Amino acid sequence: MSHFSVLARDHAARRGTLQMEHGTVETPAFMPVGTAGTVKALTPSDLREIGTQIVLGNAYHLWLRPGADVIVRAGGLHAFMAWDGPILMDSGGFQVFSLEALRKIDDDGVTFASHLDGTTHRFTPESITAFEEALGVDVGMVLDVCVKLPATTAELASAVDLTTRWAEKARAARQRPQTALFGIQQGGLDEHLRRRSAAQLVALDFDGYAIGGLSVGETRAQMYETARLSAGLLPEEKPRYLMGVGTVADVVVAVDCGIDLFDCVYPTRCGRNGRALSRSGELNIRNAEYRYDYAPLDRACSCSVCKTFSRAYLSHLSRANEMLGGRLLSYHNVAVLNTLLEEARGAINDGRWEKFREETLAGTKLSR
Amino acid sequence: MSHFSVLARDHAARRGTLQMEHGTVETPAFMPVGTAGTVKALTPSDLREIGTQIVLGNAYHLWLRPGADVIVRAGGLHAFMAWDGPILMDSGGFQVFSLEALRKIDDDGVTFASHLDGTTHRFTPESITAFEEALGVDVGMVLDVCVKLPATTAELASAVDLTTRWAEKARAARQRPQTALFGIQQGGLDEHLRRRSAAQLVALDFDGYAIGGLSVGETRAQMYETARLSAGLLPEEKPRYLMGVGTVADVVVAVDCGIDLFDCVYPTRCGRNGRALSRSGELNIRNAEYRYDYAPLDRACSCSVCKTFSRAYLSHLSRANEMLGGRLLSYHNVAVLNTLLEEARGAINDGRWEKFREETLAGTKLSR
Repeated sequence: MSHFSVLARDHAARRGTLQMEHGTVETPAFMPVGTAGTVKALTPSDLREIGTQIVLGNAYHLWLRPGADVIVRAGGLHAFMAWDGPILMDSGGFQVFSLEALRKIDDDGVTFASHLDGTTHRFTPESITAFEEALGVDVGMVLDVCVKLPATTAELASAVDLTTRWAEKARAARQRPQTALFGIQQGGLDEHLRRRSAAQLVALDFDGYAIGGLSVGETRAQMYETARLSAGLLPEEKPRYLMGVGTVADVVVAVDCGIDLFDCVYPTRCGRNGRALSRSGELNIRNAEYRYDYAPLDRACSCSVCKTFSRAYLSHLSRANEMLGGRLLSYHNVAVLNTLLEEARGAINDGRWEKFREETLAGTKLSR
Repeated sequence: MSHFSVLARDHAARRGTLQMEHGTVETPAFMPVGTAGTVKALTPSDLREIGTQIVLGNAYHLWLRPGADVIVRAGGLHAFMAWDGPILMDSGGFQVFSLEALRKIDDDGVTFASHLDGTTHRFTPESITAFEEALGVDVGMVLDVCVKLPATTAELASAVDLTTRWAEKARAARQRPQTALFGIQQGGLDEHLRRRSAAQLVALDFDGYAIGGLSVGETRAQMYETARLSAGLLPEEKPRYLMGVGTVADVVVAVDCGIDLFDCVYPTRCGRNGRALSRSGELNIRNAEYRYDYAPLDRACSCSVCKTFSRAYLSHLSRANEMLGGRLLSYHNVAVLNTLLEEARGAINDGRWEKFREETLAGTKLSR
């Protein structure tokens, strides 16, 4: 179980706490993605240093490699990856439904071929909930049906209804009270379907609700509009999680919609590709202009990378494909989002959210 | 300039201190290789944590990328890579002479095509010494002629004599007294040529002497025999550096020969390939036997990787090609060599060297 408290509100934005088995997270919070039991290139100690409160795991990836037994025998995912804070585990619905050619869906689950070795696997709502509980995560997500956009209304409606039936089965399969369970709202960009999905899931009374099926091919304006609508359909007293969002601007808009949790591979993937986040716009450190630029990566950032290394050095590392480059940029990028959310919590608390939102959004549009 | 003092001797092994511009190194010492201005995957702060005293840079790689001007404008290599301890820079002779098809040697230097982009470059003894001094390293190496083994006596003799002529030119080109200069002995496995090379270089009175041209294709027994011979030909009062040596057993044998400094890419390259060093034998962490092995990587090691993570986790990371796996194994592997040398210094100091050597060499042969 988890316990969520809203401590302050400023317009739709809220500041709260989410208590879970392995600790309390101050919300709104960014969750870096640890797909395969590691936030890529970073240690748990790095993550703590930059203020990470909770990390994400992914059932699809961990099921295939190293497999449940390896992690269960380690004493669970916390012990396996040596992270003692909260872990939220995505169900893998998004990943399985990305394997278009390799999967076959039926009423009870989905059968698919592993992207690693082609072996056949089957996920059911019950097996995924059991997997999440066996791994001892703080929050499990129900297995959902995620549709790539654009999609027909019939496809979206069918995904909503099946997601609800699976959510009901996942809920009934729960065995471990310490693992909270969140439902996942679907419905694409269709207001009617978003309302139906929210109503069906809320009736099942989950510990929290995610907004799924976004960041899957729609425009940014469409995503913002649907996120705002969707957040408003969810209960005030439960945590709301917008899946797959992780740029500075997207996070700010999402907080403005009343979202409490976010995850995205964006900051770490960018880091490995030489892209640095900042509140004053993103930069590609491999660009020629940074070769002789001895300034810190981001003057506004106080992370150890910005205190220690220059853009010129990071540009060199990234151009030379040195692992240290990906590591240092990933560290900085996650630090930027953690700091952004820390300041957002302060702004909501102090009734300065609108000013903070406007200033931050204006900053991200600055040319670099 | 550098200043070397021998503080204790035990048989041929010696314990000493090497004072340089950026600090004093306790010898014998292992120098992790920072080819491109980074010890791959590790930060300066990681290197300090595991007791690294001095790192290696490589003139060949840094000349080509990012180039002297980028580093000089940063304030030198120390500032560029944010490492404030001593740096020894290899001349790049070994690298250039590995580019067999791409280089042309003459009496005054070597012209070659970059392995990165095919552009033409020229190294001379003078330009390499100037490069090392411009980058502000603590120790520069003379540009040498390194021959791959097996080679004819004529080839080896010609490499010895040209290396000496170049060493003389490098010495004459010195401008910056804070950058010490080491000569590099050549001669392959030929005793006569090793004697000739040592005598010629010692006559030029360098701050220290490296034994080059080993670990280039000969057997381990041949390498040991030549290292022992070569070390004995060098002055007692100057530091001796055996280039390219970095397994536990090789380092122990080299210390036994009276060597003070070592470098090798081995520990970090192994780390990226899933291979872990230890005093009780090496292990390939990707092997099936480690999938469910929840013991530390190396029970005898007190590095933070061994204190924090299990073999099962490291095996998973390495099998999944996660960057964190390469990073953590590299960290451990360098820690193993640093600890080995620290204990070797203690053993020499206390007159227990032979016992330490025998126990350590016996340990490395244990089956894992």
